[in-house]
Amino acid sequence: MTKDASPLAVGQAYMELHHQAHRIVERAMTAAGISLGRAKVLIRLSLHGAMNQATLASHLGFAPRSVTETVDALEREGLVTRSDDPHDRRARIVELTDSGREAAEVASAVRKKAMDEIYGVLSPAERAQLVSLLDTVRTNLTQGEIDCGN
Amino acid sequence: MTKDASPLAVGQAYMELHHQAHRIVERAMTAAGISLGRAKVLIRLSLHGAMNQATLASHLGFAPRSVTETVDALEREGLVTRSDDPHDRRARIVELTDSGREAAEVASAVRKKAMDEIYGVLSPAERAQLVSLLDTVRTNLTQGEIDCGN
Repeated sequence: MTKDASPLAVGQAYMELHHQAHRIVERAMTAAGISLGRAKVLIRLSLHGAMNQATLASHLGFAPRSVTETVDALEREGLVTRSDDPHDRRARIVELTDSGREAAEVASAVRKKAMDEIYGVLSPAERAQLVSLLDTVRTNLTQGEIDCGN
Repeated sequence: MTKDASPLAVGQAYMELHHQAHRIVERAMTAAGISLGRAKVLIRLSLHGAMNQATLASHLGFAPRSVTETVDALEREGLVTRSDDPHDRRARIVELTDSGREAAEVASAVRKKAMDEIYGVLSPAERAQLVSLLDTVRTNLTQGEIDCGN
């Protein structure tokens, strides 16, 4: 059987896997007592350090309103603090507390386990092939975006 | 240089491409005057026919609240109608109107163009390889979900 490998078919396969993977990660996080949105903020801050809220929203692909709601909730639970950005008076810097760092470690472990479950079915060679294909697509897009800015 | 091809690295590459592709599709839809959420609902209904709102939410990976908001907006614009489900009195069936079908065609054309832009950089053989890797991952997950249900 010849598979449809049009760009549209690739996009379809991509989105279908995305929905399934999303559900798996969400379920695993919920079981660990962390919402997926909070987990993403915690992990991002633990990998990249303190950052302003707008940068965080853009890294995570969140709408500004959802990043505000998520950071509000994390602040109420004592997992992050917010402070003024000395370089931009409209911006707020978000930073993990010690409890936040512990929660980020838990979230990272849950995510790693979910990724093993999802992508562990592929052999190391297949995973390398998949990363390489995804990187080719992404590099092309990044260059396109830079070109558009000229 | 040897690339990190751990399951976690694959997940990372996947999410990064997802964010970029999402931005591109969103921008293209906005330029065509359709929000991404509405476009997804329109395209899904045009491919699969009328369906109840909960099924629609689950297919699209939307929260129940966002599917309700999106369907409300589409109904106000005369692009969909809602009617009672004869098989489930709590459910509501969502169906495209003629104008909705036209809007779905526009949205599908915008999506196809965006997919060409995103995945067109790969050769047909590379796209076939990518679809096959994504399908392997997805098939494994689907079987896992079925097993859990036993």
